[in-house]
Amino acid sequence: MNMFDLPRRFAAEALGTGLLVATVVGSGIMAETLTHDTALALLGNTLATGAMLMVLITILGPISGAHFNPAVSLVFCLNRSLPARDLPAYLLAQIAGGISGTIAAHLMFALPVLEVAAKVRAGPAQWFSEVVATFGLVAVILSGLRFEQRAVPWLVGLYITAAYWFTASTSFANPAVAVARSLTDTFSGIRPIDLPGFIAAELLGALIGLALMGWLLRPGMIQQPLKAEP
Amino acid sequence: MNMFDLPRRFAAEALGTGLLVATVVGSGIMAETLTHDTALALLGNTLATGAMLMVLITILGPISGAHFNPAVSLVFCLNRSLPARDLPAYLLAQIAGGISGTIAAHLMFALPVLEVAAKVRAGPAQWFSEVVATFGLVAVILSGLRFEQRAVPWLVGLYITAAYWFTASTSFANPAVAVARSLTDTFSGIRPIDLPGFIAAELLGALIGLALMGWLLRPGMIQQPLKAEP
Amino acid sequence: MNMFDLPRRFAAEALGTGLLVATVVGSGIMAETLTHDTALALLGNTLATGAMLMVLITILGPISGAHFNPAVSLVFCLNRSLPARDLPAYLLAQIAGGISGTIAAHLMFALPVLEVAAKVRAGPAQWFSEVVATFGLVAVILSGLRFEQRAVPWLVGLYITAAYWFTASTSFANPAVAVARSLTDTFSGIRPIDLPGFIAAELLGALIGLALMGWLLRPGMIQQPLKAEP
Amino acid sequence: MNMFDLPRRFAAEALGTGLLVATVVGSGIMAETLTHDTALALLGNTLATGAMLMVLITILGPISGAHFNPAVSLVFCLNRSLPARDLPAYLLAQIAGGISGTIAAHLMFALPVLEVAAKVRAGPAQWFSEVVATFGLVAVILSGLRFEQRAVPWLVGLYITAAYWFTASTSFANPAVAVARSLTDTFSGIRPIDLPGFIAAELLGALIGLALMGWLLRPGMIQQPLKAEP
Repeated sequence: MNMFDLPRRFAAEALGTGLLVATVVGSGIMAETLTHDTALALLGNTLATGAMLMVLITILGPISGAHFNPAVSLVFCLNRSLPARDLPAYLLAQIAGGISGTIAAHLMFALPVLEVAAKVRAGPAQWFSEVVATFGLVAVILSGLRFEQRAVPWLVGLYITAAYWFTASTSFANPAVAVARSLTDTFSGIRPIDLPGFIAAELLGALIGLALMGWLLRPGMIQQPLKAEP
Repeated sequence: MNMFDLPRRFAAEALGTGLLVATVVGSGIMAETLTHDTALALLGNTLATGAMLMVLITILGPISGAHFNPAVSLVFCLNRSLPARDLPAYLLAQIAGGISGTIAAHLMFALPVLEVAAKVRAGPAQWFSEVVATFGLVAVILSGLRFEQRAVPWLVGLYITAAYWFTASTSFANPAVAVARSLTDTFSGIRPIDLPGFIAAELLGALIGLALMGWLLRPGMIQQPLKAEP
Repeated sequence: MNMFDLPRRFAAEALGTGLLVATVVGSGIMAETLTHDTALALLGNTLATGAMLMVLITILGPISGAHFNPAVSLVFCLNRSLPARDLPAYLLAQIAGGISGTIAAHLMFALPVLEVAAKVRAGPAQWFSEVVATFGLVAVILSGLRFEQRAVPWLVGLYITAAYWFTASTSFANPAVAVARSLTDTFSGIRPIDLPGFIAAELLGALIGLALMGWLLRPGMIQQPLKAEP
Repeated sequence: MNMFDLPRRFAAEALGTGLLVATVVGSGIMAETLTHDTALALLGNTLATGAMLMVLITILGPISGAHFNPAVSLVFCLNRSLPARDLPAYLLAQIAGGISGTIAAHLMFALPVLEVAAKVRAGPAQWFSEVVATFGLVAVILSGLRFEQRAVPWLVGLYITAAYWFTASTSFANPAVAVARSLTDTFSGIRPIDLPGFIAAELLGALIGLALMGWLLRPGMIQQPLKAEP
């Protein structure tokens, strides 16, 4: 079904994660440069991120599935949408692409190539936020794929638009993006030491989403033609 | 037609109302934390709520119809889209889900599990606002289902985006959400004592919407094939 | 083709224009109440108006065509999409509906039922803005109907979103809405004495749009089956 | 396939580029008139530009392809979507239309017909931003045309919405628009002396986009029926 070879899928995941991170980091820098109002800065950050997600998932989805997110690739591996042998390449592409995105944003704004973030993002409330954020993301993707496949890019973009505001952590919901954001000391940064807590919370949220939607969406399976047994 | 059993529909209504309330309450907390400008806070609140509604109705609509709102369930009961025997389960799911949403928002922002709201929302202008808001919501849903069924999630999200701004009450338009919002003393709260006025106004608006659209949309019925009588 | 009788089409035009004006006026009041920053107020006003237009045109278009605008009804009369005998009813519905919308907005915000606007909107730059705004609106509608009929609601909402910002007059582009806005002394008001200039400019822009698009879109006409001549 | 003659395609390119520039310049003037907060001004500018792009590409795309951009016309010439003999007309229409758009914006806001911009936009970070911005634009267009042709207007509008914020140059990504913006000394202006750097960067980005997507999108070509060889 998927006619694109692994090098192209690798490139699509790297390019997509890179442009996503460049958008998150770049729009954050732009926003905090232009205003002292943090809500306004978050609004610019949100608008850019949500719009870019819609675009990237639409244009790269047919090539690689447009995960751009290790938590999502893991979920697709567990539900057998992604062959396990491809997982390492996907994760590598996402992490390398994400870091390249931070570099690109820094070069566009004349900052050092990479920095170490100093912004503290830790504690139970932040971790719970990431659990909720990633749970919701996985629920949106799995249910969207089931009921309205062509709307998935718009759904994910809209979900993240909302999640930037309704979670206390501004919804990273993505381990590769979190790593890339630990390398910028700007609006969207996160201290490297806070990464393990965020990533663990994201993976937990993803697994809860997979489990719950596995139950919630099951009855419809009977719509699909049953495979005759021997 | 609806292949999902009642437990799954109950879960979908509870999950949807919960995420909706978490978004309304959470984005309100985020917004008032980040800025002193109330218009900007309302903008962040609006953006998150509108986007989340589009997502939730798309991904849960095929399971439960995605009411998330006792006034909407009542309307569908009256026009025979929802069996009367399912109404109690729907209302319970919406109220329990909504309160869980407030709890989730509070935990994400490190607030007490539940609070009692102190924000006054009362008086004829507020009640009239809720009548208009809920009338409009029901009109949008009924007409949308009739003419452009797949657009309903987008229409409802866009309608609420507008209604947050053009009604003086910021358009609750939802008794279950109103109850859940009485349990947070933040941006989106409402005094418990003000609930009866809001809920009565919402139900009145819903009934007016049902009556008017029943007349306005009627002629088209003749398009549908008539069932032969015995 | 149009199965809805004139009373229902009248009601749809009145309801649609009423909700549109209630949104324009109401969101303007809300915005100027909440902030001192005029750009932010215009942003709230824009968001609500654009979103509501998308909704109203989708849900009422199949009934009346969703003109909500005498300049648009005139154009459709001239290009024979609307029978001339229906024009007076459409205009009456739009004006009466529009004024009702102002009344509804005032009641929701506890203001006097009607007021006389004091905001000056006059001079060549304002008039030229209205010519451009209405020209663009008519161009969008005619071209949208030709190439992508189901997208017309979204196109009109997006066009007005842009036009609120790129024209100096914030793009009324609608004589009935202009009349209704002369009866509110709030953010969106216009002095009654300034109405003739605005309305003349709007009609001029509409006619230019009709003429230009008549030429620009013509070659495609040959795609449609030619009627055999006797 | 394209049934519109060159005069109409010329007119569509001129009208589209003109309205696009009028929107960019006009909304910038409106925004800086209404607020002192630059982020808020950029937000108004972004919203108007993104919305207008979606509209213009939808309504004029079927006539001329809706390039509105010499870099895009060049790409389509290189990949044989646009006959080389039409390129000069397209470029002329875009430049003349763009300048007319600046004039229209100035007249709407009662400014001199044309001005010379004084805003400095130069240096490696700005140029790199334009390379990235135009690379992304071309990638979005080529991939969108390949996988989801009807979504291209929305994808381009959303991409530019994001690119206004994530690039340091606010993403001109368009030589004709850059020329037109050198003739306004307002929010969106650019010094004429800075044009060569911007235009060179934009063309470079476009070529990189063409090359990369040429490789990335290739495998799918085998889906199309192969032409038998003699």
